[in-house]
Amino acid sequence: MAYNLLKGKKGIIFGALDEKSIAWKTALRCHEEGAELVLSNAPIALRMGAINQLAEQVNAPVIAADVTVNEDIQALFEKTKEHFNGGVDFILHSIGMSLNVRKGVHYTQNNYDFTHKGFDISALSLHRILAEAMRQDAINEWGSVVALSYIAAQRVFPDYNDMSDNKAILESIARNFGYYYGSQRKVRVNTVSQSPTRTTAGSGVKGFDGFIDYAEKMSPLGNASADQCADYCVTLFSDLTRMVTMQNLFHDGGFSYTGVTQSVIEQMGK
Amino acid sequence: MAYNLLKGKKGIIFGALDEKSIAWKTALRCHEEGAELVLSNAPIALRMGAINQLAEQVNAPVIAADVTVNEDIQALFEKTKEHFNGGVDFILHSIGMSLNVRKGVHYTQNNYDFTHKGFDISALSLHRILAEAMRQDAINEWGSVVALSYIAAQRVFPDYNDMSDNKAILESIARNFGYYYGSQRKVRVNTVSQSPTRTTAGSGVKGFDGFIDYAEKMSPLGNASADQCADYCVTLFSDLTRMVTMQNLFHDGGFSYTGVTQSVIEQMGK
Amino acid sequence: MAYNLLKGKKGIIFGALDEKSIAWKTALRCHEEGAELVLSNAPIALRMGAINQLAEQVNAPVIAADVTVNEDIQALFEKTKEHFNGGVDFILHSIGMSLNVRKGVHYTQNNYDFTHKGFDISALSLHRILAEAMRQDAINEWGSVVALSYIAAQRVFPDYNDMSDNKAILESIARNFGYYYGSQRKVRVNTVSQSPTRTTAGSGVKGFDGFIDYAEKMSPLGNASADQCADYCVTLFSDLTRMVTMQNLFHDGGFSYTGVTQSVIEQMGK
Amino acid sequence: MAYNLLKGKKGIIFGALDEKSIAWKTALRCHEEGAELVLSNAPIALRMGAINQLAEQVNAPVIAADVTVNEDIQALFEKTKEHFNGGVDFILHSIGMSLNVRKGVHYTQNNYDFTHKGFDISALSLHRILAEAMRQDAINEWGSVVALSYIAAQRVFPDYNDMSDNKAILESIARNFGYYYGSQRKVRVNTVSQSPTRTTAGSGVKGFDGFIDYAEKMSPLGNASADQCADYCVTLFSDLTRMVTMQNLFHDGGFSYTGVTQSVIEQMGK
Repeated sequence: MAYNLLKGKKGIIFGALDEKSIAWKTALRCHEEGAELVLSNAPIALRMGAINQLAEQVNAPVIAADVTVNEDIQALFEKTKEHFNGGVDFILHSIGMSLNVRKGVHYTQNNYDFTHKGFDISALSLHRILAEAMRQDAINEWGSVVALSYIAAQRVFPDYNDMSDNKAILESIARNFGYYYGSQRKVRVNTVSQSPTRTTAGSGVKGFDGFIDYAEKMSPLGNASADQCADYCVTLFSDLTRMVTMQNLFHDGGFSYTGVTQSVIEQMGK
Repeated sequence: MAYNLLKGKKGIIFGALDEKSIAWKTALRCHEEGAELVLSNAPIALRMGAINQLAEQVNAPVIAADVTVNEDIQALFEKTKEHFNGGVDFILHSIGMSLNVRKGVHYTQNNYDFTHKGFDISALSLHRILAEAMRQDAINEWGSVVALSYIAAQRVFPDYNDMSDNKAILESIARNFGYYYGSQRKVRVNTVSQSPTRTTAGSGVKGFDGFIDYAEKMSPLGNASADQCADYCVTLFSDLTRMVTMQNLFHDGGFSYTGVTQSVIEQMGK
Repeated sequence: MAYNLLKGKKGIIFGALDEKSIAWKTALRCHEEGAELVLSNAPIALRMGAINQLAEQVNAPVIAADVTVNEDIQALFEKTKEHFNGGVDFILHSIGMSLNVRKGVHYTQNNYDFTHKGFDISALSLHRILAEAMRQDAINEWGSVVALSYIAAQRVFPDYNDMSDNKAILESIARNFGYYYGSQRKVRVNTVSQSPTRTTAGSGVKGFDGFIDYAEKMSPLGNASADQCADYCVTLFSDLTRMVTMQNLFHDGGFSYTGVTQSVIEQMGK
Repeated sequence: MAYNLLKGKKGIIFGALDEKSIAWKTALRCHEEGAELVLSNAPIALRMGAINQLAEQVNAPVIAADVTVNEDIQALFEKTKEHFNGGVDFILHSIGMSLNVRKGVHYTQNNYDFTHKGFDISALSLHRILAEAMRQDAINEWGSVVALSYIAAQRVFPDYNDMSDNKAILESIARNFGYYYGSQRKVRVNTVSQSPTRTTAGSGVKGFDGFIDYAEKMSPLGNASADQCADYCVTLFSDLTRMVTMQNLFHDGGFSYTGVTQSVIEQMGK
C-alpha cells in the first residue's frame, strides 16, 4: 500500500547490492511513495550488474562512487544535482564492510590495515558524504539522512568483530554531523539500528544463522524484516518526522530493551 | 497535507484538554489521516467543555474516564468496543499531573500523598489502560500505543519536580507492558519524549519560560512543536512502524544528544 | 584484606536480613574497613532476630524503622545523630519488596494496591530517607549514599514483575535527589545495579534459578557475588570516589554490555 | 592519605606528559598506594624530558613506545615483563590526539588523513595494547585496564571536533575487548569519562575556558579534578572492583545526568 508520503521528494540510495538488500527494498518503497531516486554503489559492486534491474524498476540513474574517494563523492553530488536540477531531500547510507570479518581474523588479532580500511568504508564514508553534500549545498532544507546501524554499537556480539566499532563510530558521526547540518540547514541525520537481516552481506558473518534465531527468540515481535525496515525509512524521509535528529532508532521488534524472554530461559534449561 | 496513513484505523485519544494540547492536535491529525476516534479525559477536565468542539471536528464520541479508577477504564473500553463494533488500532496516552508541582512543594520536601496521587495518574494509568485493554482484548493485532514523556526521565531538570520520577516509571511501564503485549498480541508500546511545549499543562511549571528558551538554544533544529509531535505520532500509529516497540523516542530537535551549543556557550560568556 | 578505607567514617546500613544479604556483607566489610555503623530494618524483619548476631559482630546498635513511615525515619536519624554525636558519612539502601511478586500476581494483572505498597517500600523509601536526612542535616559534607538496583530498570526480565518499575523509579529518585543534595551539601547519591544474587529475598522470585544460570553464562566474568558487591560499596563510600554522583553503576561481570555470548549461542543451538 | 590499596600490584601508565596530566597524577597516587610502575609515552613526548622527574619520584623505568607501531608495543611488553619478572595488574591508557583539532580544521571539513591518524593514536592504540598484552599474556588474572574518555562520545560538544568520534570508538573497543579478555583471563576493561580538565592537552582545545566554566555550572558537585580522577582510577585498579567491566564510568560531579541547573537557567535569562 502506498500513501504518496514522498511525493515530490528526491533521494540518493547507497548500497543496493541485490534484491535481498535493505537498500534495494528501500529504493522500491521510496519509489512507490512517489520519490525520484539516484542509485549509487561502489564500482566493484556495480559490476555484478543486478542493480540495473532495480534502476529500471524505479526509473533511476546509477552513479558509481567509491565512498572512500573524495573525488567520487564530489562527482556523484554534481551529477545528482544536475540530474535533479537541484538538491536532494533524503539519503540512505547502507554501506558496511570489514576485511577482518571477510578474512576470518579474530577480533583480538585484528589486522590494523584491515581495520583502517573497514573504518573508512563503513563509517568515515558517512562523514565524506555529508561533508561533500554540505560543501555543494546538495541537501535541501529539512532534508533527512539515514544510515543503517546495528546494536553491536552498544553491546558485544562476538561474531560481529570490528563492525561493532565501525557501527559505534558511524552513530557518533551521525550525531556530530547532525548537530552541524541541523544548525545550519535544518538537515536531520539519524541511524536506524535494524534486527539482524538475511541479506547477502549479513549472511557472510560467521555464526549468523544461530544468531538470527537467538535474536528472533529475544524479540517480543520477532526480528524486523528488510521490507519493514524500508517502510520505517520511508517515515524517516517523510515530512512527518522533521524534528527527529541525532538519534539512533532501534527497529528490532523490541530486542534492544528485552533482557531475556521466557523462550530463551526455557531453551537454557534444556 | 494528508496521506490516508490511518485509513480504516480506530483509536482512543486520552488527554485533549484544549486546543494547545498535543493530544488535541494529534486527534485532528489522526482524523485528517483517515482514523476514527474516541476521545477520553477525566470528568473534571471534561467539565471545561472545550473538548466538545474537538469532538465535533473529528466526529468522535467523548467518553469520560478517571484513569485512576479501574471501573472507569473498564467501562471506557466496553463503550469503545461497542462504538467501533470491535477493537482499536491505536491509543495515545497524554496524561500527567503532579500535585507537588501544582502546590509548589519542593522536590526535596515532597508530600508523599501527593506523590502517590501523581504516580497513579501520570504513570500507573498507562498500566491500568493496557491491563484492561488486554483483559478485553480491545487492541487489535499490530496495534500501537504511544505515551508522551519527557527527558526529565533521564536527566535532572530541577523545576520538573516529581514529574521526573513519574516519567521514568511511565517509560518503564511502556517497556515492560510492551514486552507482554508484543509477545501475546503483536501490540507495540512506545513513549515519545517531546520538547518542552507551551501547552496549558506545561505552562503551569515554575520557570517554564526560561527553560523553554534554553531548550530552544540547545536544540540544533529548535524545539519541536505540538503540531510536529502530532505528525510524529501519526507515523507511529501507521503500519509503517510495526517493528518499533518498547522504545523511548526523542522528538526534540536534537536536544537529547546535544551536550552544548555555540549559542549557549556564548550566552554563558556574557 | 582490609585497608582502613572507611576509618573514622560513620554509616547506616538498611536491609541486613540474614547472612546472605548484601547489606549484611556490606556491614561486615565497612566494619573491617574501620567504619562505625548503625543497622536498621523494618520491625517485622527484626523479629527474625538474626540481625542481633550481626550487630554484635560489628558493634552497632539496631534501630527499627518502617521506611514507609515518616515518623520512623525521623526518629531513626535523631537516634543515629545522638549515637554518633553527629551526622553520618554514608548510607546503604538495600530495601525492596513487591506484593505482586510475593502473591504471584502476573505483571499484566497487577493489583494496584500492591503496586502502591511496593512503590512506597522499594522506591519512595529512598526519597523519605534522603528528605529526612536533609531536613536534619544528618549526612556530612561529601557523604555518600548507595541504593541497590537491578538491570530490570533498563530492560525487561519477565519474572521480575513490578520490581522492574520500582527499580526504574529508585534510580530516578537517586538521580534527582542527588542533584539537590550534591548542590547543597556535596552529598553524592548513586545506585549499584548488581548481578542477580542468591539472597533470601532474591530466591523468592519465580524462575530465579534458571535465570541466575543464564546471567552467569551471559557475563564474561560471571555473576558478581554479594561479597564482591560489598567490596564495591566500600569504594563508593570512601573518599576516593567523591565526584561520582547521580550514576547507576553496573556491578555485574559485564552482563549489561554483553549482547550475547558464545556459550549462550551454543546452548540455543541444542 | 594512603591505604595500601595497590600493594604488590604492578602497572603501566601511558600518557604522563607533565605534572598537570591525569596520567602523571595517577602514577603518583598508584605509587603512594603501593604499586610498582612502568611509565610509557611516545618518543616525541619523552623528548620534553619532564617525565624523568616523575620516574624518579615513583621509582619507575620509562619505556618509549609509539602506540601506533605494533613493534613498539611488543617491545614495551617484553621489557615490562622482564622488569617485573612477570605480568602487570593494571594499565592506564591516557592517550589522545587529533590533528584536525591541532590544525584548527572544522569538523565538517575534516581532513581524512588527519582523521585516520587521530583514530590510530586515540582509539586503535587501546586495541593494539590489549591485543599485544593478550598475545604475551602480559596482564595477570583479575587485572584491570582503564582508558580515559569524555562525554563527547555520547553527546555533541562542538569544539571537541573528531575527538568525539575517537572517544566513541575508544569506548567501543574497551567494551568489545573487555568481553574477550574477561572471558579468557578475567581481565576487566573500562573507560572513565572525566570532567573537562585543565591539562596541557585539554588547554589546546578552542573555546576550552568557556566550556570548562559551563561544565562547572552544570555539575552539582562541580568539575572533577585530575587529582580526584587519579583517586578514582586507584579504586578501579584495586581488588575491590573486580566485577566492574565493559563500563563507561562517568567521573564528572554529576554533569552527565544533569539536564540543566538553576545556575545555567539564571545565566540564560541575562
